[in-house]
Amino acid sequence: MANWSDWVWLNGRLVRGVEASVSVLDRSFLLGDGLFETMRVVRRRVLHLEAHLARLHRGTQLFRISIGWDDQQLALALQQVLETNALEEAALRLTVSRGVGPAGPMPDPTARATVIIAARPFAGYPPEWFEQGLRATLSRIIKNERSPLCRVKSTSYAEHVLARLEAVERKTDEALMLNTQGHLVEGSSSNLFAVIEGRLITPELSSGCLPGITRAILLDLAKDSGIKVVEASLLPASVSSWQEAFLTSSLMGIAPLVEVEGEGIGTERRPEGRGVPGPITRMLDERYLAALAMQR
Amino acid sequence: MANWSDWVWLNGRLVRGVEASVSVLDRSFLLGDGLFETMRVVRRRVLHLEAHLARLHRGTQLFRISIGWDDQQLALALQQVLETNALEEAALRLTVSRGVGPAGPMPDPTARATVIIAARPFAGYPPEWFEQGLRATLSRIIKNERSPLCRVKSTSYAEHVLARLEAVERKTDEALMLNTQGHLVEGSSSNLFAVIEGRLITPELSSGCLPGITRAILLDLAKDSGIKVVEASLLPASVSSWQEAFLTSSLMGIAPLVEVEGEGIGTERRPEGRGVPGPITRMLDERYLAALAMQR
Repeated sequence: MANWSDWVWLNGRLVRGVEASVSVLDRSFLLGDGLFETMRVVRRRVLHLEAHLARLHRGTQLFRISIGWDDQQLALALQQVLETNALEEAALRLTVSRGVGPAGPMPDPTARATVIIAARPFAGYPPEWFEQGLRATLSRIIKNERSPLCRVKSTSYAEHVLARLEAVERKTDEALMLNTQGHLVEGSSSNLFAVIEGRLITPELSSGCLPGITRAILLDLAKDSGIKVVEASLLPASVSSWQEAFLTSSLMGIAPLVEVEGEGIGTERRPEGRGVPGPITRMLDERYLAALAMQR
Repeated sequence: MANWSDWVWLNGRLVRGVEASVSVLDRSFLLGDGLFETMRVVRRRVLHLEAHLARLHRGTQLFRISIGWDDQQLALALQQVLETNALEEAALRLTVSRGVGPAGPMPDPTARATVIIAARPFAGYPPEWFEQGLRATLSRIIKNERSPLCRVKSTSYAEHVLARLEAVERKTDEALMLNTQGHLVEGSSSNLFAVIEGRLITPELSSGCLPGITRAILLDLAKDSGIKVVEASLLPASVSSWQEAFLTSSLMGIAPLVEVEGEGIGTERRPEGRGVPGPITRMLDERYLAALAMQR
């Protein structure tokens, strides 16, 4: 974790990362009994903080965890972490665990939540990265669209870890997961968009995808740009008809998807077979970056 | 966690529980990226250690985690924890996390696993507890029988926590989960058995239930006792035809299930409507306890 900055906010105190620790009996460590948010910071401003905190609260309500800090205190804590680490452009990770013990599934109602904020320098990916585009495999991990965990971002994230491991072992960048109906859901840490017959399609929330903050922004951005946008089922068999595709996440923003299971996306292909970022993807990325540049 | 004993084994060292901690960037804390086993100790002997370690290894193989300690070293470490805490009858929790960072799903292949062993005094539940029996609700949490996580015991355990929370909120002891086919799977931390028309039925492994160590022992024990045993689908609608039912886990052993969703189990009912432990449940429990008593 060489890339994480020195100072970490831990339950109200700023401590050095090397000293920052939680009990071995912390429930997020023992049972994945916690929630998290990953946020991008541009010029010391946490992007879409309200949306991230709203999703965090949906999670803590589902889990019946009382954070113990209100939104204003959390916003202040995030700023403290940025200031103490002298970060202007950064990635922030806010983790809320139910706190210490017991080891069985039944929580101790008196447990005090463990709240941690860590940061690292992050100024977005370089333009070459966008031009290169990402290659994806189809994961063997089947997501359960009926699990309440789909709607929140919990630290019980092992299925996503296993999906990413599959991608890495198959020498690609991301793994797309299917749900129990055989529909595409999302990547291991990204939402999925495809352009078919000029329409922008992204799996509906009932597919089991995370209600991504950047996903929601892209839906608005596309509508404002006059693109026809549909939240609908997306089948893996449709890949050959994708004119373009991209992935979104709070850190990546928009990442062109140029190959799925060895099949190049779009009509324009590179010699090695992968596609190139398409015109709608480029236009949306430009508008997305322009919006970022306008952040105070 | 007042009930945990002082000394904890952490990556090869015995440390005081109050000082035992893991990095806030440990992957089991951040992402539920780890495995665990809960074991019962009778007269300093860890019950079914080989079976627990075999399941742990299935988990670490799936997760591509290298524990860094062989079985002999782990067995020795378990004994050290018991000896240092002067425990004869105990519950042990062995947790293996992938180790420190990074925060995204993609693991660092050079990460060193975090291995922790904690113990607490536990001599089994008193006979009154068995006579009382457990009451269960049906959980709204739908288990995904196609997830590879069903076959192992991972620290991404939040669905089980949410199921148990439902049980507690409805003032019962355990929550039975269904799979995507609507079949019964297991409790939040137990396997399920029912007696129907004199046959002992437990959900098949393909239902998505954990391959429980005590579940396997009970299957053998029942067969040896001349009971017809079937691993098959068990529908919630069948509850009214259950002559008996019980739950199993490494710590509980056999726990009679005397009520499901307010419906008493069996023909013999208490005034308040719940059933009483049935004859097959009692016979299996006696044989199970007799086998425990024979442990060196």
